[in-house]
Amino acid sequence: MTTHVRIVGVGLIGASLGICLSGNGFRVSLEDPSPTAVRLARDLRAGEIADEGTDAPDVVVVAAPPDVAAKAVIAALNRWPDAVVTDVASVKEAVLVDILDSGADSSRYVGSHPMAGRERSGTAAARGDLFDGRAWVVVPHEGSTDAAIRRVREIATAVGSAVRVMPAHDHDEAVAAVSHVPQLAASIVAACLRELPESAVGLAGQGLRDVTRIAASDPRLWTQILAGNAPAVRDVLRQVRVQVDEVVTALDSLVESDGEGSLGTLSRVLEAGNLGHARIPGKHGAAPAAYEVVSVIVPDEPGSLGRLFGDMGNAGINLEDLHLEHGLGQAVGVAELSVVPASVEPLRAELTRLGWRLHD
Amino acid sequence: MTTHVRIVGVGLIGASLGICLSGNGFRVSLEDPSPTAVRLARDLRAGEIADEGTDAPDVVVVAAPPDVAAKAVIAALNRWPDAVVTDVASVKEAVLVDILDSGADSSRYVGSHPMAGRERSGTAAARGDLFDGRAWVVVPHEGSTDAAIRRVREIATAVGSAVRVMPAHDHDEAVAAVSHVPQLAASIVAACLRELPESAVGLAGQGLRDVTRIAASDPRLWTQILAGNAPAVRDVLRQVRVQVDEVVTALDSLVESDGEGSLGTLSRVLEAGNLGHARIPGKHGAAPAAYEVVSVIVPDEPGSLGRLFGDMGNAGINLEDLHLEHGLGQAVGVAELSVVPASVEPLRAELTRLGWRLHD
Repeated sequence: MTTHVRIVGVGLIGASLGICLSGNGFRVSLEDPSPTAVRLARDLRAGEIADEGTDAPDVVVVAAPPDVAAKAVIAALNRWPDAVVTDVASVKEAVLVDILDSGADSSRYVGSHPMAGRERSGTAAARGDLFDGRAWVVVPHEGSTDAAIRRVREIATAVGSAVRVMPAHDHDEAVAAVSHVPQLAASIVAACLRELPESAVGLAGQGLRDVTRIAASDPRLWTQILAGNAPAVRDVLRQVRVQVDEVVTALDSLVESDGEGSLGTLSRVLEAGNLGHARIPGKHGAAPAAYEVVSVIVPDEPGSLGRLFGDMGNAGINLEDLHLEHGLGQAVGVAELSVVPASVEPLRAELTRLGWRLHD
Repeated sequence: MTTHVRIVGVGLIGASLGICLSGNGFRVSLEDPSPTAVRLARDLRAGEIADEGTDAPDVVVVAAPPDVAAKAVIAALNRWPDAVVTDVASVKEAVLVDILDSGADSSRYVGSHPMAGRERSGTAAARGDLFDGRAWVVVPHEGSTDAAIRRVREIATAVGSAVRVMPAHDHDEAVAAVSHVPQLAASIVAACLRELPESAVGLAGQGLRDVTRIAASDPRLWTQILAGNAPAVRDVLRQVRVQVDEVVTALDSLVESDGEGSLGTLSRVLEAGNLGHARIPGKHGAAPAAYEVVSVIVPDEPGSLGRLFGDMGNAGINLEDLHLEHGLGQAVGVAELSVVPASVEPLRAELTRLGWRLHD
């Protein structure tokens, strides 16, 4: 039996999901307040346009903006009394509370959070492989039936995501620390660049670029996300504020008095950062691997990175991570290749033999 | 005439400079409080070991830790009455003030800041191309002679750096915003991960990895840098604190009362981040280019990135920047290739023809 999925809301997430599910044997019907958006989604092969005559779906995915997600889930539960309903909002507890309070049959509701945003949004930015290899957090509540949980897992797996199961409150606390507060930190650090002289911004290096990359994200979407997760974001941001206060006080003391204890404070904050950083898992959610870095000078011309990676591939060595360091005013870059420790010596030997300039 | 450079302090920066200058026709003599370090530096071909009998240098580069830089510069100015003296501390005004106050002949002093740190430090981490393509800020003061400035520029250019000239105060304000406060932000965000449950840290995505990468930096070195630039770092960090306070207040209001005005505050902070981020120049210090991103699915096996970049190179298309997005629990990654807009269509067509899976 073909599963019939109704997608409510065809922005980036909804339309991408439609494209992917349609290509994987699901039947998809689409609805959206905007007739233009729903036609565009159909043209992108996200599914058929739903109308009065369309039959009832097996699963409903509410892909509406976070601030209307709960309302749309409640409407779906009431409209289709046999359907399993999920939503994709990045904040889960507030949505769940509204649904439980509504009196709708919440046993058929299971929340979702596919962690697959982009810096762009909207139907036109949709792509069928948006969920490939990303985490999809499945968020059941105490009353969710096993059958409903299975249905939602089936969707997540079908689009290539790795399923993680977590209660709503835990999910919200987790994303506050690993996503929402980092977004705020990037935005706030970037905001401090607004008034800088051109010559000062010109000293920006890779460190600043990395710290502020996500400061380019959509303010409208992120305002909703932060507001929707206000309690958890506030708790983590208060931890940030305590540390900022400690550092400001230490710097004040260095500037204005004898600075007693100030160096200890600075050092403690930096060491705490080392410890926290070491907890971030490597790619694919594996335990943090002790990769080692091999640095190679790469001329800034077409094909040079290609040759480099081709040479690595021929040597049978897999790249675990990569940073490109860009210099100032010179047509040359430094590629930092992360590989497993056992690959370091073979890689260095092979690249040297092939004429690459390595760092020692 | 061969220029004779004395390097005082053979840690990462001093030893790297010695290796590079020795390889570029300079005569280099080395000294360091540690006899082991200076012998290691010599063995790395950073230069000869200086002793009582070594003749006077033309240029002295003080590559001592920031907190002893001024003292070492003053000693060098007094010891060699004809030599030009520079230092490489990442903070410039405090060093300059001490030198001007010392009564030494400061007309022969010009500060330097080669922006070429690594996450590792020490003589053993030295490499001859550390300065290739990086910025080297040359920091003259009002009394510096033109001849002294020329000498220091000559060194920076010889090691492949791009010279930027800037007064000490401007330099310190610039690096507070583009380097020191971003370091603190990364450390503080990472510190908030220390107590998280394993399942929460497991949701970490590329955004968090980027924001916190430099949180792995050396706490001892960074404590000195932050303390040495306390006034400027404090000023920028106060701007950060004002914004953090505004956001905490907005979130408080959302949690505890009607949240009036809160969404406006959140949105303003995020928009300010957009504006600041847009000011960061592209690589090589050029104006920010409007690169476009082409996303490609890359199987996690040896050689796949190599084939991808090889294919790009064969098509004559240069990669301007690259992000690898790592998924969770799946052996597949997404490579986001930044190219100039004119290359987008040719690249997409060529990669599609060769069987790569692109995002639409």
